[in-house]
Amino acid sequence: MRNVTTDNITETFVSYFGEDTDPRILEIMRSLAKHLHEFAKETELTHEEWNKGLEFLRWAGRITDDKRDEFVLLSDVLGLSSLVDMVHSSPEATSSSVLGPFHISNAPPRDKGADLGAGYEGEIILVEGVIKDTQGQPIAGATIDIWQTAPNGLYSSQDPDQDIYSFHALFTSDENGRYGFTTVRPVSYTVPTDGPVGDILKATGRHPWRPSHLHYIVKADGYRDLVTEVFPDDDPYLDQDTVFGVRSDLVMTYIKQSAESFPDTGYELSGKVNEPYSKVDFDIVLVKAH
Amino acid sequence: MRNVTTDNITETFVSYFGEDTDPRILEIMRSLAKHLHEFAKETELTHEEWNKGLEFLRWAGRITDDKRDEFVLLSDVLGLSSLVDMVHSSPEATSSSVLGPFHISNAPPRDKGADLGAGYEGEIILVEGVIKDTQGQPIAGATIDIWQTAPNGLYSSQDPDQDIYSFHALFTSDENGRYGFTTVRPVSYTVPTDGPVGDILKATGRHPWRPSHLHYIVKADGYRDLVTEVFPDDDPYLDQDTVFGVRSDLVMTYIKQSAESFPDTGYELSGKVNEPYSKVDFDIVLVKAH
Repeated sequence: MRNVTTDNITETFVSYFGEDTDPRILEIMRSLAKHLHEFAKETELTHEEWNKGLEFLRWAGRITDDKRDEFVLLSDVLGLSSLVDMVHSSPEATSSSVLGPFHISNAPPRDKGADLGAGYEGEIILVEGVIKDTQGQPIAGATIDIWQTAPNGLYSSQDPDQDIYSFHALFTSDENGRYGFTTVRPVSYTVPTDGPVGDILKATGRHPWRPSHLHYIVKADGYRDLVTEVFPDDDPYLDQDTVFGVRSDLVMTYIKQSAESFPDTGYELSGKVNEPYSKVDFDIVLVKAH
Repeated sequence: MRNVTTDNITETFVSYFGEDTDPRILEIMRSLAKHLHEFAKETELTHEEWNKGLEFLRWAGRITDDKRDEFVLLSDVLGLSSLVDMVHSSPEATSSSVLGPFHISNAPPRDKGADLGAGYEGEIILVEGVIKDTQGQPIAGATIDIWQTAPNGLYSSQDPDQDIYSFHALFTSDENGRYGFTTVRPVSYTVPTDGPVGDILKATGRHPWRPSHLHYIVKADGYRDLVTEVFPDDDPYLDQDTVFGVRSDLVMTYIKQSAESFPDTGYELSGKVNEPYSKVDFDIVLVKAH
């Protein structure tokens, strides 16, 4: 093409592709280029603005390392991460929600009834639920990988004072598909704001808060893996999660209870059972794998 | 928003903005998010593909330094850089074309007739032209910043064997708006392919070549700056410049001449005038600044 124009540039871009290009790569690159081109045309993006965008990416590159990923954070605050979750959520299953950057692989297996909050002060919560299929039948032997912030708002990977597996545990559903544990309530926290993503939030008048949540990865043989989160319905940031993770079926009422009402769960609870607590019920529906 | 969905995510994104957000920032961020969201929905982007994209950006960040900018290169091969040029080109002026990453500021001022190719073997070219306004009136005193590859295909900033100002010069148009110089013909060259952008080119069956070109930045008081390039019409990569820089008004015939025909230019030529050469005529039209 000897005369590339604003009208033919997307078509010119696609015309350069080799005949043997993988059809999926072609589809993705064509869509990406088309939308980038439309963005530049629609906004009449100036050279100065283009330069600012590039400086933003260079800064994100410099600040990203083994412990921090500014590109994931960018995807999160633009809603892209949540959208990828939603596009692949099944309407019959529990909604998926952002994995986030704080998951630690190989969390220690814990018995049903274990406590994640040992040694930390905070509001005690007793979390129980059933892992089930779309017909409501319980799924035994599902693994439930849980992680959350400490009461100081930090995940273990962010906090030199925590063991790396602090507030991480791997549970297995019992013969009735049930799981249960105690912990201290996770807290609302801010995403990092000292990098370029923080500048975007400031420039658009957005706060950096995420509502309190427990992270879950649930896996069972023959079912699709589910990455999700559960939120309390009284969190002040529920209506404006800065990474767009809230779905209505993931919002649970945390029911405050007196110390005296701690239930006979039918299994041993290793944590404190003599203080006021909140009860959280969160059942999870998995769909069959293809 | 307690129930973010694929349908409302763009609207939710915009609803988070503060009331005092600068209208231009709002416009750009809204358009960027809308197109990113449409891209993810249209392609049903998977988590694995999303992860690959993030790994690509992290790699681009690691490879980018003072001398190499993989993000600019990404913008170039996606056609975004050229599109920003085109969106801001005036149809009455000479087309603009990519600045590229190899421009060196503060090139040494040279007299009309100077030679950029001293000490290098290659095809001699004599480049002449007039800087003029949209009425055809010559513009005296315009500065013409020129840079190009050496015959080995490298810009001075890429080549430890070249002085940093090698093949860079700053000319000034004379009282008739004219400029002229000799040099050795720049060559076709490849963009760097050892980073993530190289992987994109390979995956889509694209070559990494740019057709031979001379870079120009032309500035004159009261006129809009012009960043452009001039291409020879016999270059094999003219129809598939990997950064989409070719516009029809920038393609010139390089007319081969015998040594005996070296013209009396009316000004002193400091380079070789006793060898066969090609003549390049490139007039440049500037539009008034707003």
